[in-house]
Amino acid sequence: MRVVALAGGVGGAKLVDGLAKVLAPEDLTVVVNTGDDFDHFGLHICPDLDTVCYTLAGIANPATGWGRAGETWNAMESLAALGGPDWFRLGDRDLGTHLERTRLLGAGLTLTQVTQHFCRSWSVQQAILPMSDDPVLTRVCSDEGELTFQEYFVRRQCRPRVEGFRFEQADRSRPAPGVVEALQRAQLIVICPSNPWVSIDPILSVPGIWEELTRDSLHPRAVLAVSPIIHGVTVKGPAAKMFSELGFEPSALAVAEHYGSIRKGGLLSGFIVDVSDQDLVNQVEAAGIETQPMITWMKTIQDRQRLADQLLGFGKSLLVRD
Amino acid sequence: MRVVALAGGVGGAKLVDGLAKVLAPEDLTVVVNTGDDFDHFGLHICPDLDTVCYTLAGIANPATGWGRAGETWNAMESLAALGGPDWFRLGDRDLGTHLERTRLLGAGLTLTQVTQHFCRSWSVQQAILPMSDDPVLTRVCSDEGELTFQEYFVRRQCRPRVEGFRFEQADRSRPAPGVVEALQRAQLIVICPSNPWVSIDPILSVPGIWEELTRDSLHPRAVLAVSPIIHGVTVKGPAAKMFSELGFEPSALAVAEHYGSIRKGGLLSGFIVDVSDQDLVNQVEAAGIETQPMITWMKTIQDRQRLADQLLGFGKSLLVRD
Repeated sequence: MRVVALAGGVGGAKLVDGLAKVLAPEDLTVVVNTGDDFDHFGLHICPDLDTVCYTLAGIANPATGWGRAGETWNAMESLAALGGPDWFRLGDRDLGTHLERTRLLGAGLTLTQVTQHFCRSWSVQQAILPMSDDPVLTRVCSDEGELTFQEYFVRRQCRPRVEGFRFEQADRSRPAPGVVEALQRAQLIVICPSNPWVSIDPILSVPGIWEELTRDSLHPRAVLAVSPIIHGVTVKGPAAKMFSELGFEPSALAVAEHYGSIRKGGLLSGFIVDVSDQDLVNQVEAAGIETQPMITWMKTIQDRQRLADQLLGFGKSLLVRD
Repeated sequence: MRVVALAGGVGGAKLVDGLAKVLAPEDLTVVVNTGDDFDHFGLHICPDLDTVCYTLAGIANPATGWGRAGETWNAMESLAALGGPDWFRLGDRDLGTHLERTRLLGAGLTLTQVTQHFCRSWSVQQAILPMSDDPVLTRVCSDEGELTFQEYFVRRQCRPRVEGFRFEQADRSRPAPGVVEALQRAQLIVICPSNPWVSIDPILSVPGIWEELTRDSLHPRAVLAVSPIIHGVTVKGPAAKMFSELGFEPSALAVAEHYGSIRKGGLLSGFIVDVSDQDLVNQVEAAGIETQPMITWMKTIQDRQRLADQLLGFGKSLLVRD
């Protein structure tokens, strides 16, 4: 089965890692959010791309889910001694990635080309694509005014009250080369358990991606999302807090309604809730989306693989039914 | 005695360190070569400024003379795994300096301001000044064509045959704030045992500095150089090789003639040769420059201080005689 996964950072990377363990490499393409990308100290930093790539390369920090295994923090320590801003923690090994990416982008390569080159160096065989080679800048509208994503997420640690989001320059952006083609070829599109507002929506804001996901396909194709909200909370990150602040009861149902049913102008033909949210299955199905409960909290590598396995089974059943 | 030292990297930093140990902090100003500065991976790197500052801060690597003590190399290792250029060795702690310098320059601070801020953070009490806040780019004309200084020095490890030097944009540069004032107030100007061609000449190429050094001073003032060439060779670096390739027998005498006597349109009233070059004293004096032999090879911290002590004694005697 040819699969495209739409992913943000840690949660997305875990499911992608599971999918990579059960699919042939050529059957998995990952389209990664770049709305969080930013320039810091003159370096171009792509947090979600790095998290996905580090995870698939087996060099991610298993404790945090982001950053590198065996990381050291001497550059940050030296910077902090100079009074420099150390709110965005740049590990020494991680810095090597940002240095080389910045150099290659400066030499005229696109982010897609740089990412492909990095993946080759790290022996990552799946196609990892940025959502766009054009800048799309996630802005958080909050009670403290409009913040860049990293200001909100890292510097202010998600404390400001969210009022909305803006994906700056999205209207002028194009999907990265290969994204639309991968979506066209895909039989299953998986929306990972990433933050709907700031990890998945930026991907969907790139003109052409939503259109391709909702277009009638020449072959059976299903779009399936995994809820990042489990029993009203998130494993990591501010998704539940964002739903609340925007006036929605945070729940898997709210996530399903956020994306909407393909039959009602939305995206989804399938949805996966955590087993602890089994009681929501009927409500999501009432919204026009086939739903299955699974263990979605990925605590171990085995959890990732089992969820991916079950998800693919569910995906296949959706294709048959379509 | 109010002293200004003109310095390049390792050799210069050692003598400056000796001077710092015997002078009151307010009596020592160091004007540092920035002709080697370059941009790498989007970061602004100032090798000589860093070497001088790290040395005075007591955080330099005592084994190499450059870079930081207790350094780690994880960013470089990660970069090399991506096939990135690792010919210029950037340590992790050192990277912290470049990151924060790049950030502050980007925010509009001058190199002088950044350096002052760093010195304050590192508890360096002496005034460390870049020769200029304007870019002056040392170019090495060689049998392989014109090379940037770091290409010649680090990447090609000084292998190309030197045909000359060019200090690009020097004609448009101005001495950094405080440089001319410090030279005017100085009683003794010390040209450190740095490379005359690529560490000291770039400083002298900044319009106004040579003029100030050779101007009649209102108070007794002497310019004194320490030979970086000891018995035909250098402790470190390509100075002797450069003299040879440019058609000069490499020796302390060649260094003295390179700077010239103040009485004959040059700079120097005093010169220090190594004790092993005692036989050259008469020849340098015949060129119109008072000369003393001293142990100039600074192998230990004590060597630095002893040389500085003796040098100041010599400097005082020059003032009395003037």
